[in-house]
Amino acid sequence: MAKRILKIGLLGAGIIGKGVVDLYKRNIESINKKNDLVLVLERVADRDQSRLQALDLAAGNVTTDASQVLDDPDINIVIELIGGLEPARSFITRALENGKYVITANKDLMATHGQELLDLAREKNLNLFYEASVGGGIPLIRTLKHSLVADRVKRLVGIVNGTTNYIFTRMDQGGLSRQEALSEAQKLGFAEADPTNDVEGLDAAYKLVIMANLVFGKKAKLDQVYVQGIGGVTYEDIAYAREIGYTIKLLAIGEELPEGLALRVHPALVPLDHPLASVLNELNAVFVEAEAVREVMFYGPGAGAMPTATAVLADVVEAARCIRSKAENGMIEKPLAETDFVPIGDLQVRFYLRILAEDRPGVFAALANSFGDENVSLDMIIQKRRVGELAEIVIITHKVKEEAFQRALKKISDFSAIKPDPSIIRLLE
Amino acid sequence: MAKRILKIGLLGAGIIGKGVVDLYKRNIESINKKNDLVLVLERVADRDQSRLQALDLAAGNVTTDASQVLDDPDINIVIELIGGLEPARSFITRALENGKYVITANKDLMATHGQELLDLAREKNLNLFYEASVGGGIPLIRTLKHSLVADRVKRLVGIVNGTTNYIFTRMDQGGLSRQEALSEAQKLGFAEADPTNDVEGLDAAYKLVIMANLVFGKKAKLDQVYVQGIGGVTYEDIAYAREIGYTIKLLAIGEELPEGLALRVHPALVPLDHPLASVLNELNAVFVEAEAVREVMFYGPGAGAMPTATAVLADVVEAARCIRSKAENGMIEKPLAETDFVPIGDLQVRFYLRILAEDRPGVFAALANSFGDENVSLDMIIQKRRVGELAEIVIITHKVKEEAFQRALKKISDFSAIKPDPSIIRLLE
Repeated sequence: MAKRILKIGLLGAGIIGKGVVDLYKRNIESINKKNDLVLVLERVADRDQSRLQALDLAAGNVTTDASQVLDDPDINIVIELIGGLEPARSFITRALENGKYVITANKDLMATHGQELLDLAREKNLNLFYEASVGGGIPLIRTLKHSLVADRVKRLVGIVNGTTNYIFTRMDQGGLSRQEALSEAQKLGFAEADPTNDVEGLDAAYKLVIMANLVFGKKAKLDQVYVQGIGGVTYEDIAYAREIGYTIKLLAIGEELPEGLALRVHPALVPLDHPLASVLNELNAVFVEAEAVREVMFYGPGAGAMPTATAVLADVVEAARCIRSKAENGMIEKPLAETDFVPIGDLQVRFYLRILAEDRPGVFAALANSFGDENVSLDMIIQKRRVGELAEIVIITHKVKEEAFQRALKKISDFSAIKPDPSIIRLLE
Repeated sequence: MAKRILKIGLLGAGIIGKGVVDLYKRNIESINKKNDLVLVLERVADRDQSRLQALDLAAGNVTTDASQVLDDPDINIVIELIGGLEPARSFITRALENGKYVITANKDLMATHGQELLDLAREKNLNLFYEASVGGGIPLIRTLKHSLVADRVKRLVGIVNGTTNYIFTRMDQGGLSRQEALSEAQKLGFAEADPTNDVEGLDAAYKLVIMANLVFGKKAKLDQVYVQGIGGVTYEDIAYAREIGYTIKLLAIGEELPEGLALRVHPALVPLDHPLASVLNELNAVFVEAEAVREVMFYGPGAGAMPTATAVLADVVEAARCIRSKAENGMIEKPLAETDFVPIGDLQVRFYLRILAEDRPGVFAALANSFGDENVSLDMIIQKRRVGELAEIVIITHKVKEEAFQRALKKISDFSAIKPDPSIIRLLE
């Protein structure tokens, strides 16, 4: 029986797009053979002619006109690698309406309009795959979708931003300042020229929303994620953390509590013997805590053209399998339920606090009283270093409701003996 | 449209079987809802009546007669949790011949007769799923099958035996002897009363063969795996390893070399900053090195009733999806190709060697000459401790062909000044 040829159209010939074309050229023969398929990259569209030329494809296989991909009835599978909300959203909608399976690596779009697009795919009896939108080359989405299906996920904790993980690793292991580590990351291509979305935690928040939707089956919303970037963490904090058996990571944490979903991105102290502590440099990992399996972790490169291209092409193969077997997609990704959200102030958290204080009588008593008044109990107090005339005090609290801690903190900050802008970092437990 | 009821039959009500029944009771409602399925556990068979009673199921749902599962035309999916080669092999064959999808957690069987059973499943247009046969609750098989499909795996390195990992962890972190650590593992239920298969590496070899078949698409054979257990590793070796920046793990390593597959299980020094080094206690992980994605790792519980049950039920859901969509299975698991194998002697490896020698002139020269004659170059020599009258010497070699090292070692062992039975451990690089 002659095998059916399945044609792929690609939108966007940037870094990831070129990676997909390169990986396609290198491995399509073995992919087709292993999977008994005849996949053919039919056309790549990009507005930028020079990017198309860099792909080194035949002239008939490239175009500056996206409609030659979106509206070509011969194309079965469309890969969207343009990024950003528009025109990506309109293009994906059009591809689905034209009966095509869609693959995307677009985290901004999936975090904000993913459900609407997945609903449309379901309605059209097609599917939209987005493995590459979270965790680059780490097989995360497919695993969360299929392998944890019989379990109840209680919490997921991810290091899902390579830039900030590189920065913290270099601060910790290389003794660099945050700014030095960022510059180094930029030189090595692990950080963008404008790293705002990364260092302020927004990139991680996008990825958290995508994973939370999938894992909890509830409509996670970007504006319900508490987001704190890495700006408040200094080399001193990392050194203190290590001294007491922790390292600092920017974590994306999603958990299902009785009151609703709690979603947050912030720097956190991670115990050195936790598997996330050994996720170094630009690498990413997602640690999942579930009722029956207890703990699983998926680790690998969270970005990069070639790793991300493996995720895109794995999705292409899955789309091809769906087309061949006419598997309806509806089974796996059901419409999401509405949910309540738990504000950060209601969470029970342990805190690390580093403050500078004038070294005079009564300061400790004032601190102790402020915490005592709010029922914040302290696990550890370290005072050993002087900074000029000031004493540096590090405090680790027991578990406490965040808003009680913040109230105590506000009182403390009002004392004239306490210098402003203390370091406050939550602990992962 | 009324949904089709899919009936499950379970063979074997031991620890894992009971875990599957318990997890089914707890989560089947949400599994069915999430996946739009009507899965029903129809019948559990075990020869042991007391095991069946412990399941707390209705009398009509349990039987001591396996044929009531295997030959019941209403049963669509059979789960085999008997273990061992027979009658598991005959039962799976019969289930497939009777048109049923089969799930198994049986590593012995999959490592020795997996291909024959997968071939039969393919021929019958069914499928045989075996996620739980390797890595317990870690989603490994499905991930290796689907997510790395566009990449070329070069090497996989696994910590796939919980007993030996527990033993090494406790030797390293608790200062226990190997025997003490084993006893502790047995008390805690991480090691069996007869731990032979675990400590001698055979359990890991089974799992390596299953993964190698899948990843390399070649017929891996159990008798082509070089297997060395943990018997030769002492507390001293672990302490020396840590001093030079390593920990010791029992590794299962599969790699595709130009000359063929190289498959081996042996203790190895693992650099402390390698992600496998932080896989502690009874936990498992598989680290995969591939061309495009570079490195990914999957971490979690390698055993245990509930974690393994999540893998079994995830396979059940996949089987149900296949039945619903009538997806042919042939796409994914193709018949395997024959392959050559590379004997351990031909591999390039670094070695750790710890020997006791009489402390007299000429011993070092004799050592150096023996290595020099075989072109084995040395990276590190440590001599600092005395054991009674003897000097303890630790040597780390550069990369060397294993058989050259073994020849040098033989010469060294012939010197009367060198005590017999040195510790020899390979390094992971």
